[in-house]
Amino acid sequence: MKIRILVTGGTFDKEYDELSGRLYFKDTHVPEMLARGRCRLDLTMETVMMIDSMELDDGGRAAIVQRSAAAMETAIVVTHGTDTMVETASALAAANLSAKTIVLTGAMVPYAFGSSDGLFNLGSALSFVQVLPPGVYVAMNGQHFHWDRVRKNRATGVFETL
Amino acid sequence: MKIRILVTGGTFDKEYDELSGRLYFKDTHVPEMLARGRCRLDLTMETVMMIDSMELDDGGRAAIVQRSAAAMETAIVVTHGTDTMVETASALAAANLSAKTIVLTGAMVPYAFGSSDGLFNLGSALSFVQVLPPGVYVAMNGQHFHWDRVRKNRATGVFETL
Amino acid sequence: MKIRILVTGGTFDKEYDELSGRLYFKDTHVPEMLARGRCRLDLTMETVMMIDSMELDDGGRAAIVQRSAAAMETAIVVTHGTDTMVETASALAAANLSAKTIVLTGAMVPYAFGSSDGLFNLGSALSFVQVLPPGVYVAMNGQHFHWDRVRKNRATGVFETL
Amino acid sequence: MKIRILVTGGTFDKEYDELSGRLYFKDTHVPEMLARGRCRLDLTMETVMMIDSMELDDGGRAAIVQRSAAAMETAIVVTHGTDTMVETASALAAANLSAKTIVLTGAMVPYAFGSSDGLFNLGSALSFVQVLPPGVYVAMNGQHFHWDRVRKNRATGVFETL
Repeated sequence: MKIRILVTGGTFDKEYDELSGRLYFKDTHVPEMLARGRCRLDLTMETVMMIDSMELDDGGRAAIVQRSAAAMETAIVVTHGTDTMVETASALAAANLSAKTIVLTGAMVPYAFGSSDGLFNLGSALSFVQVLPPGVYVAMNGQHFHWDRVRKNRATGVFETL
Repeated sequence: MKIRILVTGGTFDKEYDELSGRLYFKDTHVPEMLARGRCRLDLTMETVMMIDSMELDDGGRAAIVQRSAAAMETAIVVTHGTDTMVETASALAAANLSAKTIVLTGAMVPYAFGSSDGLFNLGSALSFVQVLPPGVYVAMNGQHFHWDRVRKNRATGVFETL
Repeated sequence: MKIRILVTGGTFDKEYDELSGRLYFKDTHVPEMLARGRCRLDLTMETVMMIDSMELDDGGRAAIVQRSAAAMETAIVVTHGTDTMVETASALAAANLSAKTIVLTGAMVPYAFGSSDGLFNLGSALSFVQVLPPGVYVAMNGQHFHWDRVRKNRATGVFETL
Repeated sequence: MKIRILVTGGTFDKEYDELSGRLYFKDTHVPEMLARGRCRLDLTMETVMMIDSMELDDGGRAAIVQRSAAAMETAIVVTHGTDTMVETASALAAANLSAKTIVLTGAMVPYAFGSSDGLFNLGSALSFVQVLPPGVYVAMNGQHFHWDRVRKNRATGVFETL
């Protein structure tokens, strides 16, 4: 089974800029994470953008849909900021890419920081995408949610079933 | 869905004893790993044993089968040393626990060391166990394998389809 | 020899707030760092404030001077943001605490992030404070500098001799 | 001031071999540690050997003495296993390299593991070597000890004054 990973940035990939003291994006950590997970899946990774999902607008969202539609693979994992992950899932569902299983995932803490959930979530998303039927899903907190039955609880940082 | 995690030790849970300079087992790291993954599954964890899977004998293997049979849950993740993971999977399959989905996982590097694959593998196993049909599986390297179609390649440390 | 550590915050102690996505201060990491360094010095730690050194004003600087003057110990390490570390060193020198050896240190990357220089710098500052003659010093980049012969190069993030 | 670092192995530099499950030596981590500490000292590093200090014999010890004597630098840090660090310090003192300040340091936990004291100790040793008078010292636990007034307490793993 071939899988495509579409990288869009998000907390997952944030780094600390030691000169400015701010968080920013440089390169994605996904290849390093896959190496650490000794992942042996047949994967192609594509960086669509590197942004904070709070700054993702309709144009950016359309680009993610477009790259998902153009992908040859029927299994797609999208790494994404958690704040608007559900909105992008909704846009992907609206595109009606009916033969594809698309799983969005992200992280609450950047991978570059010791305590990140990113590696757990990436292992989870890559597993769900291999076995779930076509559709659009969010994989966070060890769980998977249908795109239209999930929200991020901003007070707790946890994804919940609607 | 309720999931049971049966802990048996393995590289996953090894620690460095700074007085003797040797690797040993103390407590399992699974709760810490679940916290780091912000896991919100309905889980019960049970430590069956804490040993190197090279030292696991028929009696130990019978104990793992017995705890799997006794579990109320139909979804079970077994953390296990990689060296004899396939043998234990085979023993679980022979027990014919037909309503249950059992996924074995482990790590090539202890979780306590910076470069461990354990968190990735735990995220993967917990995801597979929720969606795979009843049966016994090994989840390693981002993949899942039927118990009777997998072996660990000891030269590379990678699990392969038979 | 008794040593006092005055904690003032700085990059050293910043953490990632996973709900807001911002860096902030909670508790100091100094005790955890001392434990990790298996430090057996006779130390007293005192948190004077927890702020970004860019926000440190004359009142705050006076508080650091006052706590240094009030300390019973003649060896004092001050953990401090790097941006205005030299200004605080200058204020401490102006106070003419002539019997005391005072060493300021900090970090370019928060201790909570994998790649922090904080542990190295703390080991360095605690060593210099034990052997340098009375005076006010900055310990960064493995070096020690007299308070009036150092500046932070903001383009490179490195402390340099004037 | 020019400093030479003589690398001899020890716990400091041990790594986990994921195929055999054993600890072993590959390359030294000292350059990576210096980079992480943003160290800007004028350093030359030389790997004398990469062994467990329990396996260090008279010939090995003579090699460390010989490299210390041959060094152009008057400030030398020796990274060394903790178990026989005091014996090597004694051999160095017997060689009567009277113009040199030699500081031995090591770690209780390998640098490659999350919880290592190595970075703290390296920062400490590099600082002591710049300011202590000629002689042979052990730098561990944030402290420095004269070579003939120290022992490792094997029950606690802590270096103590004799």
